[in-house]
Amino acid sequence: MCSSAKLHKTRVETFSFARPAKTGRAASLGRLQLDGMKICSTNSEVRAASDDARAQGKRLGLVPTMGALHEGHLSLVRAAREQCDVVTVSIFVNPTQFGPTEDLSKYPRQFERDRQLLEKEGVEVLFAPSVEEIYPAGGATTWVVVEGLSERLDGRSRPGHFRGVTTIVAKLFHIVEPEAAFFGQKDAAQLAVIRRMVLDLNFRVRIVACPIVREPDGLAMSSRNAYLNPEERGRALVLQGSLQRAQQRFRAGERIAARLISSGQEVFAGEPLVGLDYFEIVDPDTLESVERISERALIAVAAYVGSTRLIDNLVLEVGTE
Amino acid sequence: MCSSAKLHKTRVETFSFARPAKTGRAASLGRLQLDGMKICSTNSEVRAASDDARAQGKRLGLVPTMGALHEGHLSLVRAAREQCDVVTVSIFVNPTQFGPTEDLSKYPRQFERDRQLLEKEGVEVLFAPSVEEIYPAGGATTWVVVEGLSERLDGRSRPGHFRGVTTIVAKLFHIVEPEAAFFGQKDAAQLAVIRRMVLDLNFRVRIVACPIVREPDGLAMSSRNAYLNPEERGRALVLQGSLQRAQQRFRAGERIAARLISSGQEVFAGEPLVGLDYFEIVDPDTLESVERISERALIAVAAYVGSTRLIDNLVLEVGTE
Repeated sequence: MCSSAKLHKTRVETFSFARPAKTGRAASLGRLQLDGMKICSTNSEVRAASDDARAQGKRLGLVPTMGALHEGHLSLVRAAREQCDVVTVSIFVNPTQFGPTEDLSKYPRQFERDRQLLEKEGVEVLFAPSVEEIYPAGGATTWVVVEGLSERLDGRSRPGHFRGVTTIVAKLFHIVEPEAAFFGQKDAAQLAVIRRMVLDLNFRVRIVACPIVREPDGLAMSSRNAYLNPEERGRALVLQGSLQRAQQRFRAGERIAARLISSGQEVFAGEPLVGLDYFEIVDPDTLESVERISERALIAVAAYVGSTRLIDNLVLEVGTE
Repeated sequence: MCSSAKLHKTRVETFSFARPAKTGRAASLGRLQLDGMKICSTNSEVRAASDDARAQGKRLGLVPTMGALHEGHLSLVRAAREQCDVVTVSIFVNPTQFGPTEDLSKYPRQFERDRQLLEKEGVEVLFAPSVEEIYPAGGATTWVVVEGLSERLDGRSRPGHFRGVTTIVAKLFHIVEPEAAFFGQKDAAQLAVIRRMVLDLNFRVRIVACPIVREPDGLAMSSRNAYLNPEERGRALVLQGSLQRAQQRFRAGERIAARLISSGQEVFAGEPLVGLDYFEIVDPDTLESVERISERALIAVAAYVGSTRLIDNLVLEVGTE
């Protein structure tokens, strides 16, 4: 009587972690599959891997990335390894979170290097789907939209960006079905948006935030740092410098956001070749501006160094500073 | 190092189907809890029920409703019973799918009668949350939006309606985590929108569509039929009459949509006290208008009988008519 949708998806493959199997697609792509890390390029493959982990009673952690991995990503992988039994890392440069004038086409792609790094970390599953696998219709027609938060900070500078982020993260949560997912505090606005989505839509996944990992001179690690020439690389330190200046004033007792912002902006005034996008002090959960810091606040900065847009941030806490 | 979100939700209760437990909230609401059907009013209660079913290897079916149950709903429950081991029915009059001038406040609510009907059908779990449980912030801040489809048919007449539907259905899928969910073909546009959402966002749930259930005289069953006075009840037959007229012409060989539409509209011309909202012939999956029926097409109609908006539809298939 009732008809099951023709859209019903069936599992096409199962495998055991104890006995890694070659997958048709990964093999046909000429990807090397070593012992220990399964490489999946289709939703059904990675679903089978997740099912297998769950069937063995293992806790599954997901680290969603866009590849071009650095120590920041690897810190997420290590956190996932600590808290979970099986770690899945996704590598997908998600087109729907890039604006039409942004760096989608030049975003660094280095799959073989990434694969080796993840293998060394003991990652069990690497999910590296094609754009066609994720968006068979050529793009998204269903969007997950977090109102309000998505228009603040980077969302204001990059219209539509967070809509792309929440949509791909929702899809990855449904495909991989992790118990926990790991995100960097470096993308503080993204983190707030994803936490709000998880709460609002009752996703059953634990969101874990990991601290910013920095280069020895303090620059926050980012795949986009690769765009910087040596001169720009030097100038890029202004981001962290501005945050530190504001932090110093905060530690000296200043609680008025406008004054802390001024002190940060002054640091940018000394680096006229860097274009400040925003320097804001906001509530870390709602991303709304705060006037006076009474408890916790996020200082977030974004700036263009040459044509490269970089972000950084720092959380201020009254009482612990 | 990494901090788990404070939003992380923990399970607060477990129970066994074999030994129904009293839930604090349901009991405090004065709801009678009989053997066999567990009544849950919180997300964590119904999640515990789903977990328990899964732990016992049972297939879980969800029938989302807004209550005011009739034989149409019960046909969904019976289909779920046939295809699944444990059936959860949700009753929630979802405010976010009603427009500001629509019938949210007067929508029929008859919990005790619904409860008895579901108990008789052998339903295992009844999920009847409050608005505050589902929208603790007072309304939705995260939306699931299916572009395109959501603006067609009822979506055009009821702006924002399908955004509310997809958002609540996504939430229910995350809260209950069913293997299959059952919807009525009566809401054909809703069905297309939900199927598109499930496909686009990789939800792991099978969508099952069940045929329209009709009164003896042909009127499609609807909770809103209760609004009709006897005179309106008679006039309401024009909806099915118009569909049948078009179907007759289709069976006689007519394939041009515009001509079939005219024949349906003519039936409305004979019932001037009923206000036609739309009479359309569309692709059942995309809801886009078709000019000529080559395979399958949906004829869908919506009309105001007094102040009551009713819908009905019929699928035409070349070769099987």
